[in-house]
Amino acid sequence: MGYSKNLGAGLFAMLLLAPAVLASDPDPLQDFCVADLNGKAVSVNGHPCKPLLEAGVDFLFSSKLAKAGNTSTPNGSAVTELDVAEWPGTNTLGVSMNRVDFAPGGTNPPHIHPRGTEIGMVMKGELLVAGETFLIPRGLMHFQFNVGKTDAYMVVSFNSQNPGIVFVPLTLFGSNPPIPTPVLTKALRVEAGVVELLKSKFAGGS
Amino acid sequence: MGYSKNLGAGLFAMLLLAPAVLASDPDPLQDFCVADLNGKAVSVNGHPCKPLLEAGVDFLFSSKLAKAGNTSTPNGSAVTELDVAEWPGTNTLGVSMNRVDFAPGGTNPPHIHPRGTEIGMVMKGELLVAGETFLIPRGLMHFQFNVGKTDAYMVVSFNSQNPGIVFVPLTLFGSNPPIPTPVLTKALRVEAGVVELLKSKFAGGS
Amino acid sequence: MGYSKNLGAGLFAMLLLAPAVLASDPDPLQDFCVADLNGKAVSVNGHPCKPLLEAGVDFLFSSKLAKAGNTSTPNGSAVTELDVAEWPGTNTLGVSMNRVDFAPGGTNPPHIHPRGTEIGMVMKGELLVAGETFLIPRGLMHFQFNVGKTDAYMVVSFNSQNPGIVFVPLTLFGSNPPIPTPVLTKALRVEAGVVELLKSKFAGGS
Amino acid sequence: MGYSKNLGAGLFAMLLLAPAVLASDPDPLQDFCVADLNGKAVSVNGHPCKPLLEAGVDFLFSSKLAKAGNTSTPNGSAVTELDVAEWPGTNTLGVSMNRVDFAPGGTNPPHIHPRGTEIGMVMKGELLVAGETFLIPRGLMHFQFNVGKTDAYMVVSFNSQNPGIVFVPLTLFGSNPPIPTPVLTKALRVEAGVVELLKSKFAGGS
Amino acid sequence: MGYSKNLGAGLFAMLLLAPAVLASDPDPLQDFCVADLNGKAVSVNGHPCKPLLEAGVDFLFSSKLAKAGNTSTPNGSAVTELDVAEWPGTNTLGVSMNRVDFAPGGTNPPHIHPRGTEIGMVMKGELLVAGETFLIPRGLMHFQFNVGKTDAYMVVSFNSQNPGIVFVPLTLFGSNPPIPTPVLTKALRVEAGVVELLKSKFAGGS
Amino acid sequence: MGYSKNLGAGLFAMLLLAPAVLASDPDPLQDFCVADLNGKAVSVNGHPCKPLLEAGVDFLFSSKLAKAGNTSTPNGSAVTELDVAEWPGTNTLGVSMNRVDFAPGGTNPPHIHPRGTEIGMVMKGELLVAGETFLIPRGLMHFQFNVGKTDAYMVVSFNSQNPGIVFVPLTLFGSNPPIPTPVLTKALRVEAGVVELLKSKFAGGS
Repeated sequence: MGYSKNLGAGLFAMLLLAPAVLASDPDPLQDFCVADLNGKAVSVNGHPCKPLLEAGVDFLFSSKLAKAGNTSTPNGSAVTELDVAEWPGTNTLGVSMNRVDFAPGGTNPPHIHPRGTEIGMVMKGELLVAGETFLIPRGLMHFQFNVGKTDAYMVVSFNSQNPGIVFVPLTLFGSNPPIPTPVLTKALRVEAGVVELLKSKFAGGS
Repeated sequence: MGYSKNLGAGLFAMLLLAPAVLASDPDPLQDFCVADLNGKAVSVNGHPCKPLLEAGVDFLFSSKLAKAGNTSTPNGSAVTELDVAEWPGTNTLGVSMNRVDFAPGGTNPPHIHPRGTEIGMVMKGELLVAGETFLIPRGLMHFQFNVGKTDAYMVVSFNSQNPGIVFVPLTLFGSNPPIPTPVLTKALRVEAGVVELLKSKFAGGS
Repeated sequence: MGYSKNLGAGLFAMLLLAPAVLASDPDPLQDFCVADLNGKAVSVNGHPCKPLLEAGVDFLFSSKLAKAGNTSTPNGSAVTELDVAEWPGTNTLGVSMNRVDFAPGGTNPPHIHPRGTEIGMVMKGELLVAGETFLIPRGLMHFQFNVGKTDAYMVVSFNSQNPGIVFVPLTLFGSNPPIPTPVLTKALRVEAGVVELLKSKFAGGS
Repeated sequence: MGYSKNLGAGLFAMLLLAPAVLASDPDPLQDFCVADLNGKAVSVNGHPCKPLLEAGVDFLFSSKLAKAGNTSTPNGSAVTELDVAEWPGTNTLGVSMNRVDFAPGGTNPPHIHPRGTEIGMVMKGELLVAGETFLIPRGLMHFQFNVGKTDAYMVVSFNSQNPGIVFVPLTLFGSNPPIPTPVLTKALRVEAGVVELLKSKFAGGS
Repeated sequence: MGYSKNLGAGLFAMLLLAPAVLASDPDPLQDFCVADLNGKAVSVNGHPCKPLLEAGVDFLFSSKLAKAGNTSTPNGSAVTELDVAEWPGTNTLGVSMNRVDFAPGGTNPPHIHPRGTEIGMVMKGELLVAGETFLIPRGLMHFQFNVGKTDAYMVVSFNSQNPGIVFVPLTLFGSNPPIPTPVLTKALRVEAGVVELLKSKFAGGS
Repeated sequence: MGYSKNLGAGLFAMLLLAPAVLASDPDPLQDFCVADLNGKAVSVNGHPCKPLLEAGVDFLFSSKLAKAGNTSTPNGSAVTELDVAEWPGTNTLGVSMNRVDFAPGGTNPPHIHPRGTEIGMVMKGELLVAGETFLIPRGLMHFQFNVGKTDAYMVVSFNSQNPGIVFVPLTLFGSNPPIPTPVLTKALRVEAGVVELLKSKFAGGS
């Protein structure tokens, strides 16, 4: 059944783009379990723990969100992530944090955080929801848009060590193997040409 | 801040289309808590329980999946849901079931079940993944496509009483108020005309 | 269907004796964690994860439920399981699926699934609850009985990767070392001879 | 204590037949939610909360386990339960406690606690597992037997406010409507007469 | 037993000071369940839901953290909380947020958040952990101290809608009825005079 | 930032004294996962599992609580713990048990069990709450005091395999590096001399 294998590969590819949405983190069974991100460590649900004495004291701190990201991107925005891959100390603690910087007119395109509910605060500038704290329930498709004339940034937190991010357009049009065009023409209610145009924008899957 | 109120309304509208993705169901604290779907009942997380003696014995059974749905739809498919709204007995039990029928060439367009992982089996016909059982992790964007010459149907189960369904194209292009066109042109990397075309297909939000 | 109503009432009665057991698997912390069932792997709660690149794409699919099991058994039934031991891809996903085939008069003897709530559908034939979908809360003692003249089968799903199965008569009478006969005579309110007769049927513990 | 080792092996053997059921109550969202057991209160998952000022201070205490139960019963044992129905203060706290008294030769017949793992300590006398603390995973079929010449009692705790209890013989033979005799003859591998004898002992369902 | 009643009252008083530590929030079973904080609503675990149409769109937003709190306090700090009591939209979403302002030399005294792990970022000034993001696991006793010459503030988030706060000195010395002095002299290894001095500072329980 | 490193060390030290409070234990995915406490085993959330055949049958039993602890201590009390470190069989089962013995006038000083709700029973003597069972929600600061003229003991259980214990005075005054005196003078509303006196009692951190 090469066909279903292809689909398998397709799902597989989508999964790399679209982490599965999988609920709230399990509770820890010790004070700390600092992630051992070493590829040679056995892989378990989440990450195994580094010996605490090797973890040092910095696992409780990070400075990665102190400086702005580079917003010279197609979207005019930059996401700086502090999930468990960036901050091993969050392993088993069920929290993480991101900083998102925006150039004027910049946008964080429609996306979903499949494993975490987001609570955030705009720290500078005028975003939609500017000057307010906001809630984005896990899995809600959402976006941000800098409607001001200056740079802006926000800091958001999640109730997961690994909330994940699914960029919706990339998943729809950039999966490899692709979602079959007949499926997308029916789904988008347009002709094949429009679907092919959209797919061409995401050729290479990024 | 009328603008952010508008966005509020926009998020609100999307939420009606896109149930938030919210983790695995909590555990029950009694044998059964048959949902009282009566609007006058107090609303709690999930549903309050009907008095068991009023619940009758049928709450353990349903026949709604016994007959095929009507596939004369734009997508050539029909989803028959047995979630808590259709089967009150599932309240607090953390499971539900759907039947999906497909005409030849029919598709179940790209969608996400935000609150449940799906495990399914193709019962008749030749779908992608035809003749096999399959897994769709919660929140994974997926679709089905009847690649055979005959009608087909599958039965799928979820590990949630209310897995929800987010139809991705409808959420992107049919939200009301809409996702601003400048956001979508950046996100889709196309000109405003293409975005407006796509939006026109989902005018009315359905 | 007075008969299934009776069963409904029967389940209802049993439920008053047997509060359902209702739990759920812990949530995953990554997209997939395909079970490494290799005995040499470290053992953890559940299973460690295979490197995703070694997992292949088939971990999302299985064909094991496509064909009927052999019902030439003492019970006239055959259970084909697709739990994590049979389908490594279910590891951390909190779902699994079984197919049960029945010869005419065949029965699936009283049993309990201790780690999963069951939702099922009769696909062929006339079982008790024939032609309907049904719910069996985790830990409820239940059985199936083919009351029709033809073969029958059902497909059931669970909200656990490893729901387990406790065959009640085997546990009562076939444990080794045995439950002491004085305990069983008191418990069953019969003479030792009846207990010894029952034990003799399960000598060898299977 | 070869005997208790044997029982250990026995439990071990049973466990291979009977995977433990292991869950936990949902977490509370306030300090206390003292159960309002008044039938007129709305029914929810668990129990609604009494206004704290009406709950008094005694909800934190109980004296019900201070005195022995009456062991003049068919089984020569008496279970005194302190679950949420007896101790409203346990509502949402995920714990409860039982005291079980035994006359010489008394037994607590094979049973399952479907919603709670049991941890217990023999306080007086010589039970199987006498003089030791013991663990009974949720859903494991187990029993106790007073093998000493004096009264005995134990105190057990559960990680649930409502662990429930399933008396296995009563469920097998005393359900109403009954499990059909043809099902039990197949399941027990005996003739209908033996099944009818056993059912006759539990006529009236208690 | 007036004495234990007194203790009951004592525990009761401490509970008002010291919300019990109770694990991660249960998962929601709908998109939103905006807290109905109206005293006349039935009380359940967490809060019942307002009808969504009465909730308005603002439940997704708050401006309460936009302005600094008044740090003219004994501790030279001010905590502005956005938990479910302040932001009903967080009900069932498992997140909340605080802003803490500090005068130079100001401190947030040793405390515990019993129901939530804290992840925070110093936004202005030089606190211990200044300029860094930091993690405070649920239940860890911690404090903050403004070691700079200017005002400072931080924004912290929690993985609970109601993390609670236990001010340790107030609970030790300000409970009513008090923790008996003989207990505190043993516990603190000092003479009764020192204990009485400390208690005198918290007379009135605040 | 040596200063924040110091604080890091301080938090680190406190954590060794004060296990973080981290919610209810996750659910197991097998019958037993007897803790392999061997330092060479990979470390995961909780403990990896010993091969069941190497676990022996004793993992279900313990006799450690059968004899009284030695109450010749500064507090006149002795805690005998049976958590996962003492009883590997509790790994993944979500329960544990302690025995606490008291000399006349003995006290178990103010403390918190950060990971488990406690349910207990006074077995001998006259403690506050003497002769009663009692509930201590996770994270509630509490103490016991032998108000009788004889030895006393109680047995308590927890809904966690590793409830942890935070002795409050030791954490406040014995952390290393210490909580800065200016923080404690503000927090306790006393002069530095009193703080230094209290710290001197816990020099050496025990």
